[in-house]
Amino acid sequence: MELDSLFRVVDVTGVVASGLLGGAVARSKRFDIVGFVSLAIITGLGGGMIRDVLLNTGFPVALTDPAYLGGALIAAFVAYVVRLDGALPRRALAFADVLALGCWAATGTIKAAGLGLAFMPCILLGVITAVGGGMLRDVLVGRTPTVFGGNTLYATLAMLGGAETWIFTEILKRPQLGMLVSILTTAVLGVMARRLGWMLP
Amino acid sequence: MELDSLFRVVDVTGVVASGLLGGAVARSKRFDIVGFVSLAIITGLGGGMIRDVLLNTGFPVALTDPAYLGGALIAAFVAYVVRLDGALPRRALAFADVLALGCWAATGTIKAAGLGLAFMPCILLGVITAVGGGMLRDVLVGRTPTVFGGNTLYATLAMLGGAETWIFTEILKRPQLGMLVSILTTAVLGVMARRLGWMLP
Amino acid sequence: MELDSLFRVVDVTGVVASGLLGGAVARSKRFDIVGFVSLAIITGLGGGMIRDVLLNTGFPVALTDPAYLGGALIAAFVAYVVRLDGALPRRALAFADVLALGCWAATGTIKAAGLGLAFMPCILLGVITAVGGGMLRDVLVGRTPTVFGGNTLYATLAMLGGAETWIFTEILKRPQLGMLVSILTTAVLGVMARRLGWMLP
Repeated sequence: MELDSLFRVVDVTGVVASGLLGGAVARSKRFDIVGFVSLAIITGLGGGMIRDVLLNTGFPVALTDPAYLGGALIAAFVAYVVRLDGALPRRALAFADVLALGCWAATGTIKAAGLGLAFMPCILLGVITAVGGGMLRDVLVGRTPTVFGGNTLYATLAMLGGAETWIFTEILKRPQLGMLVSILTTAVLGVMARRLGWMLP
Repeated sequence: MELDSLFRVVDVTGVVASGLLGGAVARSKRFDIVGFVSLAIITGLGGGMIRDVLLNTGFPVALTDPAYLGGALIAAFVAYVVRLDGALPRRALAFADVLALGCWAATGTIKAAGLGLAFMPCILLGVITAVGGGMLRDVLVGRTPTVFGGNTLYATLAMLGGAETWIFTEILKRPQLGMLVSILTTAVLGVMARRLGWMLP
Repeated sequence: MELDSLFRVVDVTGVVASGLLGGAVARSKRFDIVGFVSLAIITGLGGGMIRDVLLNTGFPVALTDPAYLGGALIAAFVAYVVRLDGALPRRALAFADVLALGCWAATGTIKAAGLGLAFMPCILLGVITAVGGGMLRDVLVGRTPTVFGGNTLYATLAMLGGAETWIFTEILKRPQLGMLVSILTTAVLGVMARRLGWMLP
């Protein structure tokens, strides 16, 4: 129960962090306030919406839990008012982003596993949840999605986090522990990948 | 009943107007006839399809009511045969487009409210219905979606129309009146925004 | 029964061929291995996923039949390891691609008809199944989708194959024969369109 609340906090923190990053893109493109709101919603909620549409199980959670849409809107307004390009806010955002990555990879995997899907589709849905929003945002503003290459390793970390979560959920029957491990893994490896400039071949 | 018929006429008029605008983009890109058909379908029916996929309630209406797909196809062929770049057809198209904006913002909001969603998700679905098709079209032809900035105010007007519709639907229990008010608002403000070059900060 | 197995083989062959073509795009863009995997999955499975999401009938088949996701992954790894730019592999890929086009146009049409949709939406879903994945891939890497113009005639052939399949399915009650005719038509006309540089007006 307490762990659940913790994860929801991480989840919505991820929405806010992604929303702020979406807002930063809107600023760099000199969009108006509607552009900030659109990109914050798309970046923060897009991945989970694609997952829920593919899983075809009623309303996307982003439409029913007000914390999600609310978090994205608040992020949009903060990003519109405050310039987030100092060293500290940037580092804090990048860290929250990488926490969200692990959290979202885990929630996507757990949701798909709970619906009876096999290992590979579960991981795929974890990755889509984690990177789908940023991908949508990049396409909408005319950038090649960063997940396709470069030194962020986002999709790789999401795959790893999803696989760990799957093992903890399906084999060890401890989904919450899996989410914790997934978040820790992506946080540690994500920060190291950024620092050390790790790249895939 | 009569009002319902009127709204269906406005709705399909919007599909045709959007389809013609999609065809105009196809002409400017020198696409072949298949490009005209694709862009007319995407521009005219895309927003409602995204809405229906997110709401997850059976077939999108664009697949079951033949007037929608038929309207988009007719628009594609008209745009292919007739050059619509005179002053009069352009103004007529822009006006039909702005009527459709209010109509679609209202239908999206009413559909979401009827399924029990809260205020914010209702407005979001109204906006998606109204601007989703044009956004898809812009992304597919490699343009930055106009809703993110510029002086069209499309998304802003859709938000306003959706909010009005929501109040009339949920509080005053008069959804049809809400749709009428939404159409009038976006028509009047849309034409003024165009004329006077209104922009958001 | 035997014919069914044959069609499944063609279907998965199409996934592999499309996946290899997606991988070739990843190579031309110098993406890393994750980019190869993403583009192979999107190109090979995207069209069917959009179809299944629009038809709103449970999980997309790409998530439940392991041959699909497996085929796309194998294609990604092959495209990553082997350079497929000789004359022979290119021709073989283009041929498998055009076989898949007819097969996918037919499966989309048959699935939509089985759910009770009318002629036009059935054809639309056949075309979406056949060209949706390539369209998604093109948009994600920042290219104008080839279906909008040029001498591939993909969408036109998919329309033709879908219409043939619809006649065989709904009027003659022989869906399998329709699929065979659709595959033969797109294969023969597709190869001729490529050779002779056919274009639409």
